[in-house]
Amino acid sequence: MSAFSTEDHFNMKSALALAERVKGLTHPNPAVGAVVVKNGVTVGKGATAPWGGPHAEKTALAAAGLSARNATLYVTLEPCCHFGRTAPCTDAVIAAGCKRVIVAVRDPNPLVAGKGIAQLRRHGIEVSTGLLRHEATVLNEDFFWAVTRKRAFITLKMAFSLDGRIADIRGASKWITSPALRSVVHHLRAHHTAIAVGKGTLLADNPKLTVRKGSGKEPVRIIFSSGTGLPRESYFYRHAGDCRSIVVIRKKARRHITVSRRHGIEYWYTGCEDPVGSMSTFTEMAFENHLTSVFVEGGQRIASVLLEAGLVNRLYLFYGNRLFGDGRDGILFNRGLPVEQCISLKNRKTFIIGNELYLTGIPDNLR
Amino acid sequence: MSAFSTEDHFNMKSALALAERVKGLTHPNPAVGAVVVKNGVTVGKGATAPWGGPHAEKTALAAAGLSARNATLYVTLEPCCHFGRTAPCTDAVIAAGCKRVIVAVRDPNPLVAGKGIAQLRRHGIEVSTGLLRHEATVLNEDFFWAVTRKRAFITLKMAFSLDGRIADIRGASKWITSPALRSVVHHLRAHHTAIAVGKGTLLADNPKLTVRKGSGKEPVRIIFSSGTGLPRESYFYRHAGDCRSIVVIRKKARRHITVSRRHGIEYWYTGCEDPVGSMSTFTEMAFENHLTSVFVEGGQRIASVLLEAGLVNRLYLFYGNRLFGDGRDGILFNRGLPVEQCISLKNRKTFIIGNELYLTGIPDNLR
Repeated sequence: MSAFSTEDHFNMKSALALAERVKGLTHPNPAVGAVVVKNGVTVGKGATAPWGGPHAEKTALAAAGLSARNATLYVTLEPCCHFGRTAPCTDAVIAAGCKRVIVAVRDPNPLVAGKGIAQLRRHGIEVSTGLLRHEATVLNEDFFWAVTRKRAFITLKMAFSLDGRIADIRGASKWITSPALRSVVHHLRAHHTAIAVGKGTLLADNPKLTVRKGSGKEPVRIIFSSGTGLPRESYFYRHAGDCRSIVVIRKKARRHITVSRRHGIEYWYTGCEDPVGSMSTFTEMAFENHLTSVFVEGGQRIASVLLEAGLVNRLYLFYGNRLFGDGRDGILFNRGLPVEQCISLKNRKTFIIGNELYLTGIPDNLR
Repeated sequence: MSAFSTEDHFNMKSALALAERVKGLTHPNPAVGAVVVKNGVTVGKGATAPWGGPHAEKTALAAAGLSARNATLYVTLEPCCHFGRTAPCTDAVIAAGCKRVIVAVRDPNPLVAGKGIAQLRRHGIEVSTGLLRHEATVLNEDFFWAVTRKRAFITLKMAFSLDGRIADIRGASKWITSPALRSVVHHLRAHHTAIAVGKGTLLADNPKLTVRKGSGKEPVRIIFSSGTGLPRESYFYRHAGDCRSIVVIRKKARRHITVSRRHGIEYWYTGCEDPVGSMSTFTEMAFENHLTSVFVEGGQRIASVLLEAGLVNRLYLFYGNRLFGDGRDGILFNRGLPVEQCISLKNRKTFIIGNELYLTGIPDNLR
């Protein structure tokens, strides 16, 4: 592996920034960015277009045109070498005459998994990998997880008071956090294929589950329930036509999906009465039905089941600048953990925004 | 008021740094720093010596010697103009022949309160105030509160799991936070006149209430109790001779203090059975008995009474990188607050240390 120059770092950062801008819009494809550089000048840029449109490399190479010959291509993910909805990107790179390709991270998709890089090398192209690998991996962690584990990536988000409550003594939770922190949540929602809450939250908050100030694409809406008896006057039912809407039902019935003629709502029966088993099955069904990532926003029961069962890929905790002194605990396990065995967060990052903060990490009981 | 130069800022910052170094060692006097500068050269430095020793200005002026003539004195607090254990500092400043005095903040002590500045001006010295006033005020907020309100300054510190628990389901709380975070706590303890916990914490944790790696001075130890029945085998009883040790008793008896012949322990009877009334009386008794500031470290009951009653001057919340899922709530009020009336923290500061964080602020229900 070659050493990377400052220029290499700069260009790969540009490619990552391009990818970040389309994060959430490319499902079920990963978000990828590409930059073509020749003699120190950027001659082409590209990012993954929505599903079915061209991949990042092709857009960047097309922009570069004849300048791509003998140029260096920076790409945040290994170029694909298989036919999907589009022709292989490796063919385009070879045809454009690139001299060198720098890849941030290999594609763990079994259809690629190093084959793209091998093909480029066979055509005499110098390929280096691993530049800003960590950043590129985190950017598409949901995609990488889903494609290798055949399960949807689960992000759990909770908004706590400083004393760990998600609602006051009357059950009111509007608003624990400020508009500034809530706008971060909307940004995160937009990065996921679907947004989910439990039936309790639907009844208590009647949430919209939309991406306000978003990029135009509304994520799929999901309600977890133990039955079909949900309020027809809820926002979820009244706006079921706006986007794909799913009710996941925990019931000892055959695992199957039905679609309501009236609302177009999908009813997913997990075939499991046990909350943990049902949630685990749900992550498989979600993947099979093209939901790469699900952003779960509580409430207490759903959050606790997911966390206790080790099904949370990434946890976000938002803390408002408030003390309730009593109210609804944010998390309440079936069985609390002793201090030696409790859950810690790996790869933790904390962000301070005004008088508030939020943090994220990977629960170390992820299975 | 004159505008301050960059050099002025630099010198006052030096004076503040000197004061910070002696914070916690000067009770019941405030921690003060002083710097004497002549023609751009620092010719003397000083900080408050332990009680009875010289004040910061005198040490700095003594170090400067004859160079103090026509020099500028930077001092973090208005020089005193009354006889205490030492002669007035204003006399020393006048005698040294300083030309200019820059004061960060006026002394709210009714014995001074602008009289020191007025005296200097009467002697033809140019006096400016307000340079880095905020920093100087926070540094001695405990002293300022106590001297104006005739009550001890109460700092409440709690160590929470991310889900707001102070102990796991078995009651174990060792350790929620890492050694790095605990060393911050030891640093804070050293800044206070006394350290206090409730009887429950004494029974559960048998805490030492010492300042490890400290500067040599151990704060006074306090236990809040509803009676005298405390375990004689506890660290508190066995080491009562190491430093002043106090048991505060909430009982409907005459407000008075007795001292045990055997242990030397002081028993403070607040004369109040009601927890809030008792705690409020305690803050007065503490001030009368030369305890300017008390660092309260829980547990749940003591913390909740203090917070709910608006008796907390400064709150510190430490969050370990752990999720318990159940256990003992950190805070549990007699009556939880609705979201519109809950407590917020003013002047909040948040610190990220590795995978953990702590924050501090002033509860907005402080009365």
